Amino acid sequence: MTASLLEQLIEAFRVLPGVGQKTAQRMAYHILERQREGGARLSAALAEAIEHIRHCERCRDFSETDVCAICASASRDAHQLCAVETPADRLAIEQATEYRGLYFVLQGRLSPLDGIGPRELGLDRLAARLAEGEVQELIIATNPTVEGEATAHYLAQLARQHGVRPSRPTHGLPLGGELEYADRGTLSHAFGSRSEVP
Amino acid sequence: MTASLLEQLIEAFRVLPGVGQKTAQRMAYHILERQREGGARLSAALAEAIEHIRHCERCRDFSETDVCAICASASRDAHQLCAVETPADRLAIEQATEYRGLYFVLQGRLSPLDGIGPRELGLDRLAARLAEGEVQELIIATNPTVEGEATAHYLAQLARQHGVRPSRPTHGLPLGGELEYADRGTLSHAFGSRSEVP
Repeated sequence: MTASLLEQLIEAFRVLPGVGQKTAQRMAYHILERQREGGARLSAALAEAIEHIRHCERCRDFSETDVCAICASASRDAHQLCAVETPADRLAIEQATEYRGLYFVLQGRLSPLDGIGPRELGLDRLAARLAEGEVQELIIATNPTVEGEATAHYLAQLARQHGVRPSRPTHGLPLGGELEYADRGTLSHAFGSRSEVP
Repeated sequence: MTASLLEQLIEAFRVLPGVGQKTAQRMAYHILERQREGGARLSAALAEAIEHIRHCERCRDFSETDVCAICASASRDAHQLCAVETPADRLAIEQATEYRGLYFVLQGRLSPLDGIGPRELGLDRLAARLAEGEVQELIIATNPTVEGEATAHYLAQLARQHGVRPSRPTHGLPLGGELEYADRGTLSHAFGSRSEVP
């Protein structure tokens, strides 16, 4: 009985990705011993975020408003639409590249065995968006995994159906990487699609 | 503005030990995408724990009540008192050993440079406890680190002042470990304090 709130807290921490019993325990002790203020902030931020963060009506990314800031921005190029699997992917592209177009967040990838089909990825909404006629290029930035490639293939067909040009970021050796440490798939792909030195 | 609740949540996750920007981001996305219920539970558990969990008046361990379950239990041996650095240490001993005595949780170790002296470890309360006369043995289970050893030395003196016998769990090779992988300090200590084969 005495330890129950502590046990509940340890158990609750285990919903976090990659957090097992030991880590959950350490987190609970750390909060109680040294970070009660931070813990209270985390508690409040979680409650607020869960209550107010929904999905943007246009791009399906997380948003507190019906339409997210990027979709609502007049300074973005509405002719380019970039499809990504997750909000984290969108953030990575936004932080690393000069891309100024719009996004569509699939919140997953086609995975029929897990019951994730076109419907779950909101592809009906994407089709309607492409049908509007404003988008000229669909940049398909799904992950280079089997499921990501299958999703990319599906999206490319969808784009062509609506007269939109599909494109895909090139694959190849990572910048700053060493040949020796590149995985076989990447290396063989990079050799197969080599470009002439200008 | 739009992402601010999300940004606040990501920032809030960083109070957890070992959680940097990337992990905090993954945690926030995971909760929002797949674990809103679990996130709400975590938020509530945090708020409850922070509000209600205080320290036990007797042993300084975490407790919802003035005196924790172990200190309040009539079935524990009040002649033995085990001093540990953290609640996690107490839990480890409780789970791994047959120990049925009581505990005293220092919530730290002597570390003058960090401003942690006898006062911060509640040693005045420990002294008062030893002066009560019920405790016959003080088992000093601080960690075998430099600071832990210094704390152990101090506690042993304190015990002797009150006519209490200090003891310390033996150090040596870990059970099931291999000689080859034992650290030098442990190996040299184990050889120096070897016991005759019966």
